[in-house]
Amino acid sequence: MIERIKRFIDENRLLNKNERYLLSFSGGPDSVFLSFILDKIGYEFELFYLNHLLREDADKEEKFVKEFAEKLKRKIFVERFDVKRFCEENKLGIEEGARIIRREKLYEKIIQFNYNYALLAHTLDDLIENFFIRIFRGSGFGIPGMKMKEDWIIRPILNIRKNEIVSFLNNEKIEYYIDPSNSDRSFLRNRIRMELIPLIEDISPTGLNGIIKTIDNIESMKSSFYKMVKDIKIRRFLNHIEFDSGKYLSLPESLRFLFMRNALSIFSGELELKKEHIKKSEGRFELKNFIVEINKNFGIIHKKVQLEEKRLDIDKSLIFGDFYIECKKVDDLIYKKNEFEDVEYFDLNDLFPPFFIRKREEGDKMVRFRKNRERKIKDFFIDKKIPVILRDFWPLVCDRNGILFIPFVARCERGKIKKETKDILMFKCRRILNGWT
Amino acid sequence: MIERIKRFIDENRLLNKNERYLLSFSGGPDSVFLSFILDKIGYEFELFYLNHLLREDADKEEKFVKEFAEKLKRKIFVERFDVKRFCEENKLGIEEGARIIRREKLYEKIIQFNYNYALLAHTLDDLIENFFIRIFRGSGFGIPGMKMKEDWIIRPILNIRKNEIVSFLNNEKIEYYIDPSNSDRSFLRNRIRMELIPLIEDISPTGLNGIIKTIDNIESMKSSFYKMVKDIKIRRFLNHIEFDSGKYLSLPESLRFLFMRNALSIFSGELELKKEHIKKSEGRFELKNFIVEINKNFGIIHKKVQLEEKRLDIDKSLIFGDFYIECKKVDDLIYKKNEFEDVEYFDLNDLFPPFFIRKREEGDKMVRFRKNRERKIKDFFIDKKIPVILRDFWPLVCDRNGILFIPFVARCERGKIKKETKDILMFKCRRILNGWT
Repeated sequence: MIERIKRFIDENRLLNKNERYLLSFSGGPDSVFLSFILDKIGYEFELFYLNHLLREDADKEEKFVKEFAEKLKRKIFVERFDVKRFCEENKLGIEEGARIIRREKLYEKIIQFNYNYALLAHTLDDLIENFFIRIFRGSGFGIPGMKMKEDWIIRPILNIRKNEIVSFLNNEKIEYYIDPSNSDRSFLRNRIRMELIPLIEDISPTGLNGIIKTIDNIESMKSSFYKMVKDIKIRRFLNHIEFDSGKYLSLPESLRFLFMRNALSIFSGELELKKEHIKKSEGRFELKNFIVEINKNFGIIHKKVQLEEKRLDIDKSLIFGDFYIECKKVDDLIYKKNEFEDVEYFDLNDLFPPFFIRKREEGDKMVRFRKNRERKIKDFFIDKKIPVILRDFWPLVCDRNGILFIPFVARCERGKIKKETKDILMFKCRRILNGWT
Repeated sequence: MIERIKRFIDENRLLNKNERYLLSFSGGPDSVFLSFILDKIGYEFELFYLNHLLREDADKEEKFVKEFAEKLKRKIFVERFDVKRFCEENKLGIEEGARIIRREKLYEKIIQFNYNYALLAHTLDDLIENFFIRIFRGSGFGIPGMKMKEDWIIRPILNIRKNEIVSFLNNEKIEYYIDPSNSDRSFLRNRIRMELIPLIEDISPTGLNGIIKTIDNIESMKSSFYKMVKDIKIRRFLNHIEFDSGKYLSLPESLRFLFMRNALSIFSGELELKKEHIKKSEGRFELKNFIVEINKNFGIIHKKVQLEEKRLDIDKSLIFGDFYIECKKVDDLIYKKNEFEDVEYFDLNDLFPPFFIRKREEGDKMVRFRKNRERKIKDFFIDKKIPVILRDFWPLVCDRNGILFIPFVARCERGKIKKETKDILMFKCRRILNGWT
């Protein structure tokens, strides 16, 4: 088994002995297996565990996880997060919310401690489960492929079946923690795993291998298409996608239509797209569930989502549209901005809590940092070339006195950090990318 | 319901009151429903029923079918065919063999009696079942689309769910015949219908609608791809596909690779295809399960199939590779050749039964019609520009004295019809196209 994974890693050039990795660890069989194998092969990695505080046995799990890391003589980061409350507040399903939070926390550590990549213990079974979840939603281009490497994430055991893992661990007498919620039939994924996949194995012994081949064939259809449209790069966020409009506009009309059609199928497709919609080259149009804007720089397809004002307390975080926003008291200004992350620091004593996040309203104004005159925030959006369509889904961080921070756009003059500042408040905002799963 | 189907037919311009149709009728709910509705709307159609002689209740079914036609005051063709024996002899699954025979017999009537199209009572459930059958086989480009119209076939109720049909018939107190083999769990299709689809409906109430959307999205990916490769026309036969090599060869290498990859996925894909394989522009190469030939006129991908010699008795038919061959005593020479069908007539008393079909062997010779000198049959293949790869899968109709007929290529001088011929023997051969299902 070790040899097989070694071969898979080498053939696909996934890992490198000169790099440092952070392995997302849950204590379940998959991540126990991945840790065990990579430890044996001798890669440099450490563990990250997020206690979701979801279940009564959460402490027991955390204890197991810490002991496992100790036995492996690997450092482990343990964080706790009230996932249930977060999901309720943000109207997310537990599974989706937990995934988003896990990714955010993991990414934070990757950046903070300079890891090269995060390692996820996804298996072939996860791939098949995702395939079904996506086709049940009516996806097309959103059907996941065999992505061993994606942005900052690597999946070194994506070719292994879960039952192989479990029998390996049992044979080797390696302990793992069984998450009782994995058999909770109110989760679609669990029913796919516990009922659908075994049924398919029963009615067609070669069926699952066929599905894996199909996934591969669909991936080939996707890459064929991207090739045809000059490799237009699509960036997927939680509720919208962005693409290079220059390349898009240079396509003939019939290809533009197909591109739009396929891009919509990343979500769940939109059957009401008509040829008329793509007749005009630049501009906006609305479909039943989406708004589309093509401007000189970007093409954007945005799901129609309702965004209500949300309160954001200190040391809490929330999701607003496609943004993950955190509010935290900190001791220093260590976080830096990057393409997907914006951070601003404030003198807490100059602010008027409670804080809240809302979308823009007609006539919103703000005094920008290092300025002394109020201006319409519309001008700030224009300065930063934020597409019109996105402005209606953009978060404004406010206190009782007005707008404090427009992530990736501007912050206000008020509350700036001074020599004598005692209490530093940080607002960190990340655009949520939506990849494989 | 009638209104809904009328709208579907009109929106998709499926049927026309000036045309005559032949409806493939089984007595089951779907075809009873289709007949009832089209009768009400007032289209001109007649019925075709093939008694498969498979089940003990076959006579009862035939009786029901005839009575139904009588009540509807529509003409019905009733044919009988020993499907089980045919499938055994040709090593086909019952379902596949029955489908091929039904198509052949139906097509025969379409040609013979000048119908415009055949009507099939396929429903949304059939589409979903086919989707699963195909993904279990590892298909990609072979995943079926919402094909309401395909060659000589029209599917006017492809947007209707089976349970809608059954409750309509029950409400209207319209009788239908229940085929007991539809609940035979040894058929993959039946288990998909009886177990998989209900499970999906249970675990995800919107899952099936999602799958229908996915099918549509995949269809769009397929048509995108065909557009990219200059609409290369692919013809699908049972065991091979043919495409225009001129267009193929004019593609850049990377597109040729993708085209080949996707074309292979019409069957079940072939993961061992390498870039090296498409480096050479013309020529042949072998993969694990396929042989590929690119020549000046055609590109051909052929499954590796074993073809053994088969006996063909009078008034019987068989399948040899991608050909359906019939041997029949007839009174006149009514059948004509067409692109997919070749026919030759012989004076039975000049032949030496039994007849058999085999593939070519080194040194095969024949005296061609209206010639008097024996020539190598290789020359005949060359004259007719039959691609080399196909020659090894081509049927030769023989008697004890030698080769009589090479369909679509040549027949022998021996046994030609004379004024004094009493017993006419017909050999009819059709290339089996493989469409949606």
